[in-house]
Amino acid sequence: MLTIAVDAMGGDHAPKPEVEGAIQAVVEHNVRVILVGQEEVLRRELSSHQGDWEGLPIVIHHASEVITMEDSASKAMRSKKDSSIRVASRLVREGTAQGLVSAGNTGAVMVTAKTVQGMVSGVDRPALAAVFPTAKSKPCVMVDVGANVDSSPEMLAQFAIMGELYSRVIFHVKHPRVGLLSIGEEDHKGNDLVHKTQPLMKKLPINYIGNVEGRDLYNGHADVIVCDGFIGNVALKVSEGLVEVIRHKLKDSLSSTITRQIGSVLARNGFNEFRKGFDYSEYGGAPLLGVKGVCIICHGRSNANAIKNAIRVAADYARGRINERIEEELAATKL
Amino acid sequence: MLTIAVDAMGGDHAPKPEVEGAIQAVVEHNVRVILVGQEEVLRRELSSHQGDWEGLPIVIHHASEVITMEDSASKAMRSKKDSSIRVASRLVREGTAQGLVSAGNTGAVMVTAKTVQGMVSGVDRPALAAVFPTAKSKPCVMVDVGANVDSSPEMLAQFAIMGELYSRVIFHVKHPRVGLLSIGEEDHKGNDLVHKTQPLMKKLPINYIGNVEGRDLYNGHADVIVCDGFIGNVALKVSEGLVEVIRHKLKDSLSSTITRQIGSVLARNGFNEFRKGFDYSEYGGAPLLGVKGVCIICHGRSNANAIKNAIRVAADYARGRINERIEEELAATKL
Repeated sequence: MLTIAVDAMGGDHAPKPEVEGAIQAVVEHNVRVILVGQEEVLRRELSSHQGDWEGLPIVIHHASEVITMEDSASKAMRSKKDSSIRVASRLVREGTAQGLVSAGNTGAVMVTAKTVQGMVSGVDRPALAAVFPTAKSKPCVMVDVGANVDSSPEMLAQFAIMGELYSRVIFHVKHPRVGLLSIGEEDHKGNDLVHKTQPLMKKLPINYIGNVEGRDLYNGHADVIVCDGFIGNVALKVSEGLVEVIRHKLKDSLSSTITRQIGSVLARNGFNEFRKGFDYSEYGGAPLLGVKGVCIICHGRSNANAIKNAIRVAADYARGRINERIEEELAATKL
Repeated sequence: MLTIAVDAMGGDHAPKPEVEGAIQAVVEHNVRVILVGQEEVLRRELSSHQGDWEGLPIVIHHASEVITMEDSASKAMRSKKDSSIRVASRLVREGTAQGLVSAGNTGAVMVTAKTVQGMVSGVDRPALAAVFPTAKSKPCVMVDVGANVDSSPEMLAQFAIMGELYSRVIFHVKHPRVGLLSIGEEDHKGNDLVHKTQPLMKKLPINYIGNVEGRDLYNGHADVIVCDGFIGNVALKVSEGLVEVIRHKLKDSLSSTITRQIGSVLARNGFNEFRKGFDYSEYGGAPLLGVKGVCIICHGRSNANAIKNAIRVAADYARGRINERIEEELAATKL
């Protein structure tokens, strides 16, 4: 049985969703969980679930320090040697756990996982992948959404290999269509980075479909979209901001007259389904591709469902031998 | 009275929305319109409006050729000397018209306006600005959304000055808050271009609020967001794609049961209002900032309302002396 180390202190509402998500995960999926954090706090939270977790494969591993959202990532990594993030990452490096899940400070998780767990052989830099819902049944994986800025063409080619494997193993897409994010479909459209990356993409053993545009993130035309982390982060944040404002505007405009209020009540279940499709928690967080072991980074606001799904994805990642396959594919490809 | 030259052949549904929008504009706003395109076609379209336009300040100016959406921008600009886009642009250069409105091939409009009308003194490159609805009452202007890739820090600083003036003159924002698009609010976050642009932004005579993130495009925290055209285009297309998929999902999920169908009918007016807030046609297209005269580029799918609003914006742009003010501000600022 695989073991996942969960940083139980990192999220905005820690440790409640972390503990609840861990209980759900071990019940529903075939995994063990190590909750990492302040023992007293975690024991108290677990005991609020009474008999729920007794006999379940959940253990607590003490870590005295907590990295906050306000901490500088690299400083905190160096100064807080006994932070829950770092201790959990160390459990993965030592082989006690096969994967790390954290809803903590994203920068700190990235730098810790990279430093403590190390990199997969052949990978220059780890990349953060995000999963977007599409008009079709399968989601779209965008990589990188913020681990790197000013990426080189070689880095983008590596992102393509890693993202393609993620789509295949986690979402069971047989021949993921991999696109290079640009501002027009024709090869000559794009910036300098796009033009230098195109020839490398064509050499990769993947189903490369050429340039794609921003709208292809949602229309289902691509399974994997490759870009520099600055652009990917903007795309992610723009999307989050737009969903938020649409939600508010919809609520406002639907509640402004009595007739609409009635309509709104009747239509509520419809809205809830629609929201669920855009609920990132269903996809279980963003994998940091290219680090040894597994590292899944959740949104700070993650609920128990998001944590549960992240634990499931971390286990599937390890079972699917994604890292070994990244290493093999990179070794076979001359970049 | 100001005169606006409208490329009446460019849009996907030309010349219907162009002619209808022109009639509405001259009725509602204090402008004259020159419809540029194939005389016979335009005369026929106008005559379908019967007596509506007789006596109104609308004239037809013949241009024999049409640049299609499939044409290569720069090739078409050179080879189709008598295209409606080029002839309309020439009317602006000659001073017969004070502004150009086109829903045609965006690339062709940009290269034509830049070449035929020329650049405002002190501006290195024109920039395309797009207007986004926000959670607050005023929209957010993003510049550049695709006229340039691999922009220099100096270009971004010029975009800031031009976007700020646009927000002030067209949306009556008193002290527009101008942000630099990045992936974190702190100065040290961002890529090389962001870091090199920050010191220039601080020297400008504008209300510079530092780095902003993708989500600030919609939450109303900024009135103007400055970025390279590659990033801005991705942000625009991602937004368009997301609105489209939400629209479909909402429709699907609301019509899947009878109860929800009833709710949906009652709530229909609410939806329509919500859609209108996201209807880019209300903002009258995207201005190409930095070219002499005025150039407003509309979406190819523009309806009459979009064309009407673009004509209004073109007139307000000329009346507000935006170009003269860009020139003055750039001359006064050492970049």
